[in-house]
Amino acid sequence: MTAAPLAVSLGDPAGVGPELIAEAWARRDAQALPPFFVAGGPGLLTAAAQTRGISLPVAQIFHPAEALDCFDRALPVLAGADGEYTPGAPDRDGARLALASLGEATRLAVEGGADGVVTGPIAKARLAEVGFTYPGQTEFVADACGMHEGDAVMMLAGPHLRTVPLTVHIALEQVPTALSEALVERKGRIVAMALMRDFGIPAPRIAVAALNPHAGEEGRMGDEEARLIAPAIERLRAEGIAIDGPFPADGLFAPRQRENFDVALCMYHDQALIPLKALDFDQGVNVTLGLPIIRTSPDHGTAFGIAGRGTADAGAMIAAIRLAGECAERRYGI
Amino acid sequence: MTAAPLAVSLGDPAGVGPELIAEAWARRDAQALPPFFVAGGPGLLTAAAQTRGISLPVAQIFHPAEALDCFDRALPVLAGADGEYTPGAPDRDGARLALASLGEATRLAVEGGADGVVTGPIAKARLAEVGFTYPGQTEFVADACGMHEGDAVMMLAGPHLRTVPLTVHIALEQVPTALSEALVERKGRIVAMALMRDFGIPAPRIAVAALNPHAGEEGRMGDEEARLIAPAIERLRAEGIAIDGPFPADGLFAPRQRENFDVALCMYHDQALIPLKALDFDQGVNVTLGLPIIRTSPDHGTAFGIAGRGTADAGAMIAAIRLAGECAERRYGI
Repeated sequence: MTAAPLAVSLGDPAGVGPELIAEAWARRDAQALPPFFVAGGPGLLTAAAQTRGISLPVAQIFHPAEALDCFDRALPVLAGADGEYTPGAPDRDGARLALASLGEATRLAVEGGADGVVTGPIAKARLAEVGFTYPGQTEFVADACGMHEGDAVMMLAGPHLRTVPLTVHIALEQVPTALSEALVERKGRIVAMALMRDFGIPAPRIAVAALNPHAGEEGRMGDEEARLIAPAIERLRAEGIAIDGPFPADGLFAPRQRENFDVALCMYHDQALIPLKALDFDQGVNVTLGLPIIRTSPDHGTAFGIAGRGTADAGAMIAAIRLAGECAERRYGI
Repeated sequence: MTAAPLAVSLGDPAGVGPELIAEAWARRDAQALPPFFVAGGPGLLTAAAQTRGISLPVAQIFHPAEALDCFDRALPVLAGADGEYTPGAPDRDGARLALASLGEATRLAVEGGADGVVTGPIAKARLAEVGFTYPGQTEFVADACGMHEGDAVMMLAGPHLRTVPLTVHIALEQVPTALSEALVERKGRIVAMALMRDFGIPAPRIAVAALNPHAGEEGRMGDEEARLIAPAIERLRAEGIAIDGPFPADGLFAPRQRENFDVALCMYHDQALIPLKALDFDQGVNVTLGLPIIRTSPDHGTAFGIAGRGTADAGAMIAAIRLAGECAERRYGI
């Protein structure tokens, strides 16, 4: 049992966030979800639930702890802003609401009123229009924790696979220069610590993907493996971390190879996300490692195109809430 | 029914090639395989078969057509060189035998005595030691056909997915400069033609993967999408080819997205091979498109480490032989 509920942010109210949160609450028993509350949006959540045929009782609360008492019978919603539910039609009011909800949910996690934060999907371009200056929610959350964004490590977790992209939102052309021995080392260490502390893996096995095809074939197709990746791996091994590689990335995600590691460190965005989405599309969770708080998010976007139609899959939202609860249980469990 | 059998090359005799060929023959009925013969190696095929508990009758033949008569009762082996079977211990004699077998099998396909060639796995570094000057078997086969290697397009095909890497064995750093509008256009056209002619898909749907994360997000993370990829797609569409993209590569291989295309054109090696091997590891086939002959190969290496142990999976070899037969049926079928 944990001490506090999880805080969930709405995401963009024109996207699938609200309806998936409602569905997660409706399936809380079957999915064994930990108690959570939503930061704001009571009216919109009710409207979004109706599009999926869910009759959603909402309980307005004024303090996170109240969520523990009413979660069984109603979706706890923390008093705050609300908005019109206009699925598929994002606007500035909605973006402001998404931002307010994100800020409030994160603040409560930082202050300890919530055991962690699960962030609903936002549209970065929309949020930028109302003053959001971060590349994404991960950097926002890191800043709210008083951390440097480089210490917040994105991990994608699904039933088949966990991957970490060491570089994220940069052009492919910039990847080789953005990589460094220090980057592999620092993020590798954060990943190892997080899997021990929050994932219950006492000696996590980390596989490192190569940058170049066939891991460069001894330098014939690139030298980053020998120059940057291997030295970082050696240093981490010397610290007692069970890390190995660099392995040719194409074979690394084949079924038998996947059995040999708990997480794969990848060199760039698509190298980490292609296998995750190919194998675990509707259940992928984005977890931020290295922060003083627990933060997860469903690994999909706002899906404006299908919002309000009742067809969006709630698997990733449910998995994100469950995983945040499991991490909290391990970190704060009593 | 086709006119001629398929020619199969041994691959490196110290690798898993010979044992997998033997197993494919042993399972020819259950797997509905077309008639094939092996170029050389009768003694070593028998020895390799024994390691898998297969009692392999071998029929020495002197002309490909004889394979059709004896395939039911014995594995037809074209008179040629033979060698010692030393699994896991590659040497120069073995490399020479692999090269002779590849040359002979390819020659027969080019001359029409065989309906196509299925190449067993070789170790490029080993073959290079005995004078093989090509980057891989694909380029060797292209040259044997009198074609420029740029016209030989590698496609990976599995039960879940077909992918084509537009650039192949180069460092990741070189990918952005190696890509061009002309490259996308030329290879896109070859792929469309091949799927029509050899794969029985009258109007193949081609999806093109982006180079950069999120397809560059309108230029914020790279401009190759707008500069090179989109114009090539437009030109091919103007020719009536059902080609679309560039799509963010991470979501492209998720289950629902895969339903929307017959083949994905990928920008680099790992982008094409990561999803293929994640989804179809033991059944991936490497097909060479754009040549006057049909050529397939199991999409795995020599696997020296497990050769002779009886554990190597014959799925990809069987799939390579079956696919070559299906392509031949469509191209030459009477």
